[in-house]
Amino acid sequence: MELYFLRHGIAVEHTVDYHDAERPLTPKGQRRTTQVARRLQRLDLRFDGIWTSPLLRARQTANILAAMNLGDRPHFLPALAPGGSFTEGLDLLKTIQPQNAAAKIMFVGHQPDLGIWAETLIWGEAKENLILKKAGLIGIQLGQLSRPQPDHQLFLLTSPKWLL
Amino acid sequence: MELYFLRHGIAVEHTVDYHDAERPLTPKGQRRTTQVARRLQRLDLRFDGIWTSPLLRARQTANILAAMNLGDRPHFLPALAPGGSFTEGLDLLKTIQPQNAAAKIMFVGHQPDLGIWAETLIWGEAKENLILKKAGLIGIQLGQLSRPQPDHQLFLLTSPKWLL
Repeated sequence: MELYFLRHGIAVEHTVDYHDAERPLTPKGQRRTTQVARRLQRLDLRFDGIWTSPLLRARQTANILAAMNLGDRPHFLPALAPGGSFTEGLDLLKTIQPQNAAAKIMFVGHQPDLGIWAETLIWGEAKENLILKKAGLIGIQLGQLSRPQPDHQLFLLTSPKWLL
Repeated sequence: MELYFLRHGIAVEHTVDYHDAERPLTPKGQRRTTQVARRLQRLDLRFDGIWTSPLLRARQTANILAAMNLGDRPHFLPALAPGGSFTEGLDLLKTIQPQNAAAKIMFVGHQPDLGIWAETLIWGEAKENLILKKAGLIGIQLGQLSRPQPDHQLFLLTSPKWLL
């Protein structure tokens, strides 16, 4: 099972006009995210499920993936909001794995959360030492989640600069 | 300071004809490594120093980087051979950092060694949970090596599939 994390694209700054949860992608953020999605398309990737943080910039990022036919309509996963619960994210994955051990799952969210989740999966603790840029991508090969100490492996950490 | 690890390209199998240290890159290995080098060139990368494991497949990989003008002639670093000493690699970096804090350094070597070095730098211990394919690349932003607990960050882990 492959788990991907995509950080939302560049969004407008947090000002009095925009509540943090309602900051949209900038035109550049939309463009860059679309380029990343097109690249994933060319790699013949298709996700068996896309889950997104409910914040607008993440939803818009996830919708771009779906619009590029990389998966069906994204689901909300409140745990993907900033400061969300890693355990809830893990619980979702645990329900998917027995049904489809080869599933490719996409989580769209925020930093430092996605980096912390990735480190926790792979090394059991987070030191916030993964640099995940906007519209950057993490790929994790998931081990057997039903085991007490499953072995997950990092196979991808990349930013648009290196991907496009 | 940026530290890059490049795993050698695809080499001929270990048989009675080839001692492990003298296994050359296959034509596909040369081609793929050249494509990776060309990609690094297009990203305007130039290394202030290239060090390589003394094994033929790594030397040939490093020579391709130099031939593509990504750096001067590679130096040997015996510590980059399989099972080599991480401390020796670190000692070399410690001599470079005070002279050029923005240096981009390339180490060409083998798995699982490069993955172990990367994990040790970033999390202080290795669980062998980084997947580094042949001609795959790791990028680490190095903290201040003279400090007792320097903070290093992983910004890149990619394979030719995702890079080209």
